[in-house]
Amino acid sequence: MIGNCLENVRKNVPLVHNITNYVTVNDVANVLLACGGSPIMSDEPDDVADITSICGGLNINIGTLNKNSIEGMFIAGKKANELSHKILLDPVGAGASKLRTDTAVKLAKEIKFDVIRGNISEIKTLALGSGTTKGVDADVSDAVTEENLDNAVAFVKDYAKKSGCVIAITGAIDLVSDGEKCYVIRNGRPEMSKITGTGCQLSGMTTAFIVANPDNVLEATAAAVCTMGLAGEIAFANMAETDGNSTYRNRIIDAIYNMDAETLEKGAKYELR
Amino acid sequence: MIGNCLENVRKNVPLVHNITNYVTVNDVANVLLACGGSPIMSDEPDDVADITSICGGLNINIGTLNKNSIEGMFIAGKKANELSHKILLDPVGAGASKLRTDTAVKLAKEIKFDVIRGNISEIKTLALGSGTTKGVDADVSDAVTEENLDNAVAFVKDYAKKSGCVIAITGAIDLVSDGEKCYVIRNGRPEMSKITGTGCQLSGMTTAFIVANPDNVLEATAAAVCTMGLAGEIAFANMAETDGNSTYRNRIIDAIYNMDAETLEKGAKYELR
Amino acid sequence: MIGNCLENVRKNVPLVHNITNYVTVNDVANVLLACGGSPIMSDEPDDVADITSICGGLNINIGTLNKNSIEGMFIAGKKANELSHKILLDPVGAGASKLRTDTAVKLAKEIKFDVIRGNISEIKTLALGSGTTKGVDADVSDAVTEENLDNAVAFVKDYAKKSGCVIAITGAIDLVSDGEKCYVIRNGRPEMSKITGTGCQLSGMTTAFIVANPDNVLEATAAAVCTMGLAGEIAFANMAETDGNSTYRNRIIDAIYNMDAETLEKGAKYELR
Repeated sequence: MIGNCLENVRKNVPLVHNITNYVTVNDVANVLLACGGSPIMSDEPDDVADITSICGGLNINIGTLNKNSIEGMFIAGKKANELSHKILLDPVGAGASKLRTDTAVKLAKEIKFDVIRGNISEIKTLALGSGTTKGVDADVSDAVTEENLDNAVAFVKDYAKKSGCVIAITGAIDLVSDGEKCYVIRNGRPEMSKITGTGCQLSGMTTAFIVANPDNVLEATAAAVCTMGLAGEIAFANMAETDGNSTYRNRIIDAIYNMDAETLEKGAKYELR
Repeated sequence: MIGNCLENVRKNVPLVHNITNYVTVNDVANVLLACGGSPIMSDEPDDVADITSICGGLNINIGTLNKNSIEGMFIAGKKANELSHKILLDPVGAGASKLRTDTAVKLAKEIKFDVIRGNISEIKTLALGSGTTKGVDADVSDAVTEENLDNAVAFVKDYAKKSGCVIAITGAIDLVSDGEKCYVIRNGRPEMSKITGTGCQLSGMTTAFIVANPDNVLEATAAAVCTMGLAGEIAFANMAETDGNSTYRNRIIDAIYNMDAETLEKGAKYELR
Repeated sequence: MIGNCLENVRKNVPLVHNITNYVTVNDVANVLLACGGSPIMSDEPDDVADITSICGGLNINIGTLNKNSIEGMFIAGKKANELSHKILLDPVGAGASKLRTDTAVKLAKEIKFDVIRGNISEIKTLALGSGTTKGVDADVSDAVTEENLDNAVAFVKDYAKKSGCVIAITGAIDLVSDGEKCYVIRNGRPEMSKITGTGCQLSGMTTAFIVANPDNVLEATAAAVCTMGLAGEIAFANMAETDGNSTYRNRIIDAIYNMDAETLEKGAKYELR
């Protein structure tokens, strides 16, 4: 089933509108192409309504927000809601500044998202309406571990129920819940945290997955998370001795490009709680 | 002769001012360095006139336009015209939104371009003053094929004549015309469409080629198109089994870096119509 | 001792706030991760004070400045000064336009920097309050060579004394001075100039080094310069025949990722004047 979700992306070639940060935008575009989607980027308020109208989904990432792009996010989000397009929010750095927290909270309030994906600190900030994060990384004290897993699962289910959308918390252990069920995913490698933007890439890819699997958003999100983690494992196995984080970045995108449904189905490591 | 055009770039090291999108800007800079040029990026209205004045050419790409950068495009374009610098327009996504279409049409009207390079849908939009594109990709129904090639050649010659500049339409088959002659180019690989920004890269490189070959804009543009396509073929031949679109991107730039006039001369696949 | 500086970065994982250009920002982020730091990017005036407050250091790079980000630079710089954070200025293209020269001069006047890093033309522009550069590259007539080394050392010492901060001039020969001592560094490869943004990457990395070695800014800056140059040498030795500037870029970041204190200590080529 997880494998089918990837197949549907390759079959449908979903066009995804990204309002995203300028740090990792190129990798987001190449990951979208690697998984079978098609990216377009636009953040200008006068441009976003037209652009989102021709797309199937919208990926909003606040990583390098500014006054102009924030305006674009609300216009695009409302238009995408009108058109019943799939929408994802990546609240990068929510908790790290008032502007980021306020923007993420306001977006979550005024726009109906299908998926919100972030690290545990960002999602806690959203759930509480305030919080602290260590820059764009999760606070160590927040990290989901085998020890606090039960509590974390309860938290994500609760917030998914309250927010009415699928919540994906990614880290060493990933959690994806729609309020009823929770995927606990153990794919990935710790070295992925030494590459900028694996989270942003995952958000872009997840948007393509939910557009291509519109009636199955929970599983499509879990499938995207497994794809990213498994690609990290495959890419790591392909690393030569002198390779480092820059080559690792390329090899992960390459692994997504070469991933097929069978490989994903076999390599996905998850349990349902 | 095609090979000479590349040699002239390496000899003259043309400095190219790029007002381009933030998605593919890093690759545009590295491709310009790979082919022997030198890049500088600036889009702030208060900065662009000075920057373009010290350059030999200007590359305007509307891929992630905003109100501020649009103002910069017109200021830079007019200054570059005053100084008789070479100028290229890449109308990314013209047809996909009113803002993009209007901006591209207005740029083409108010600034004298030496070359306009885009996919068939973007160029049709410009020629008609309106149109539709599938995001930043050409509409499939527009694609230049062996079957509709005669019509496409007639169209590009006609639009080149009307617009008074060299028109380059790139896709599976590339067309480059000055209104009299038309290069029909069959270099390249279909896998290049799975990398974000090969078009943007080509526009940057083409600007360097026309600056370094000022009296031979048609052939210089064709040479740049052949260089990109041939690099795609060479890079593809160098791909390992686990490589994907991210590594392919690097290998294409690498192939341009290592390209010499003789390789280009031998590998270029074109006919003149 | 140079080696210890790198070890301290890996131990302390300094969080660095970057207001930098959109051309090379992804590489800056990955280099910061490669050397052991942690990057966050933010240029919006309403966001930067909060973001810089949670960081240890601030890296200001004017490579693609605009009115909004310039405002952000002054707000962030003043807040970082208030908090006694380490701050670095990279005056990209100072001398190439009035806006860049004026902005760099004003930043150097109103904000207390710990390090200013640029090419010789940019630093001369800052020292004189005006100047000319060939785009973002140093003017050939300015280049530091074995022949004019004594004069260049005298210049950098003098400007470091006057400005009250460590000055790093990078090129074929690198000079790092606090006004009393001057490191003359001969690491690196000429091929590094064929990659966009090695200077920007070095500025980001240097900020991490001075945050992690707060009482030893001169040596920490020299250590960062040696790390970049040595990584360029190691990466070049790892190049295959078909590799070019794009792969070289990746291999340099990889070499930083894999660098340890001992390798740096042995490979650093410098003398003190």
